Amino acid sequence: MIQRPKFYELLTEAWKESRSFLCVGIDPSIEMFPTNHELRHGGFLDFCTSIVDAVSEYVCALKMNHAHFASSGHEPELESLIDYIHETNPGIPVILDAKRGDVDSTAAKYAKESFERYSADAVTVNPYLGWDTLEPFIKYERRGVVVLCKTSNPGSAWLQDHPKESPMYLRIAERVQQQANPNLMLVVGATHENSLSQVRQIAPDVTFLVPGVGAQGGNAENVMKLGKRSDGLGLIINCSRSVIAQDRETFDYFGKVASAAKSLSESLSIRVN
Amino acid sequence: MIQRPKFYELLTEAWKESRSFLCVGIDPSIEMFPTNHELRHGGFLDFCTSIVDAVSEYVCALKMNHAHFASSGHEPELESLIDYIHETNPGIPVILDAKRGDVDSTAAKYAKESFERYSADAVTVNPYLGWDTLEPFIKYERRGVVVLCKTSNPGSAWLQDHPKESPMYLRIAERVQQQANPNLMLVVGATHENSLSQVRQIAPDVTFLVPGVGAQGGNAENVMKLGKRSDGLGLIINCSRSVIAQDRETFDYFGKVASAAKSLSESLSIRVN
Repeated sequence: MIQRPKFYELLTEAWKESRSFLCVGIDPSIEMFPTNHELRHGGFLDFCTSIVDAVSEYVCALKMNHAHFASSGHEPELESLIDYIHETNPGIPVILDAKRGDVDSTAAKYAKESFERYSADAVTVNPYLGWDTLEPFIKYERRGVVVLCKTSNPGSAWLQDHPKESPMYLRIAERVQQQANPNLMLVVGATHENSLSQVRQIAPDVTFLVPGVGAQGGNAENVMKLGKRSDGLGLIINCSRSVIAQDRETFDYFGKVASAAKSLSESLSIRVN
Repeated sequence: MIQRPKFYELLTEAWKESRSFLCVGIDPSIEMFPTNHELRHGGFLDFCTSIVDAVSEYVCALKMNHAHFASSGHEPELESLIDYIHETNPGIPVILDAKRGDVDSTAAKYAKESFERYSADAVTVNPYLGWDTLEPFIKYERRGVVVLCKTSNPGSAWLQDHPKESPMYLRIAERVQQQANPNLMLVVGATHENSLSQVRQIAPDVTFLVPGVGAQGGNAENVMKLGKRSDGLGLIINCSRSVIAQDRETFDYFGKVASAAKSLSESLSIRVN
């Protein structure tokens, strides 16, 4: 297992360095690769490292989407990609977005997968099975654990907002706040602004990973206004497709990726109080 | 994608053939391999296929635990193992226990992973993100989808039983029952008997995948009494460690595995009304 700084220390430094809340999500699909890619480059891994090179100066974190690697058997490329990021950009925290959730010994295997096999600095987890199922992840004291709270999809209310008087997602937010552990975070979607502001009230000290800005319709300005902590920090705002999926026919695909990241990074810039 | 019978047809035939509710869970760990294994055999995949050979005549299903393959980079072995089962035992439904749960296009990638990459007949999913996130799985009409409802671990009450008057797990059970789709199932743990019987009341027609008998303390007799449907069927009772983890020093490891499966298969035998 690679020795890395504690997740929260890495993130604090990366906020300072990038002066932005932007996290770029790397969700590769062969369908999005530039049409001249296979000729010029080596395929899947090369597409991903080119994205990293294009965006690294603009981000406070990078998020890898496990499903996009697993659906096509590209786990070895995911390993190599994370190694590449640690090597070329050791100051950027890497979040593995895998939404793991399972009981005791199986949860321990998933924690091992995230932190030892992939050397991710943090992983997303699903709390539905119970707090005991998150503990094997939290045991890795240096690593971050991002707990699903309120997600950005249209159907998230069904279970997450139930019951109205004491919704599930606030119950989760409360428990994470109580842990007083800066490596323990919450996923809170950008598309439900009212929920975002309620979670901030209940969990004033917790860092939020926020999906849903851009393609899914979340508003960056409002997310920052409602989601920031009182110290002006506390957000990791993820954008995936709006950065990494450019016109496939374009002459300078990765240049376009860099411009998109630069412009988003500016609109998500940190103004410390 | 391999053309396989519909999940529920496979399962119905497998219940008839095996006359048992026993499902063996294949959760391989190098720590459990017989001490003379590496000398005699080829390692990870060979351990798993030897388990299949030992138990196949006693089971109505086989369940693969994704984490136990993923933590050590054995996804190619998981692919080969499922191919091996389809080839040698085409009548046994294969459940991929991966507890997937993610939004729209990512859920579609996970569905593709389960049903196209691995050719699993069914997959376990986590409904916390919302019903819309299960639809990419349900779209594969021939395949089974097993929705987490009430899990067997000690901490499951925290979110699943909230709130008392209308617990989350019953809300899930109700929705699955309403679909009237025999390929749509529920995970209901053996260790919470009262919950098991409540879920059966609310979801009289649904098949349950039941973990927690054996090592975790669930009682087989009671599970069958409380969990069976009125037609005397409707259960897939999973046992993992109590079958596949034998004394590592034993002379005849896989013979012991077969005996354990035979004896559990008898104690979980189907007596159709």
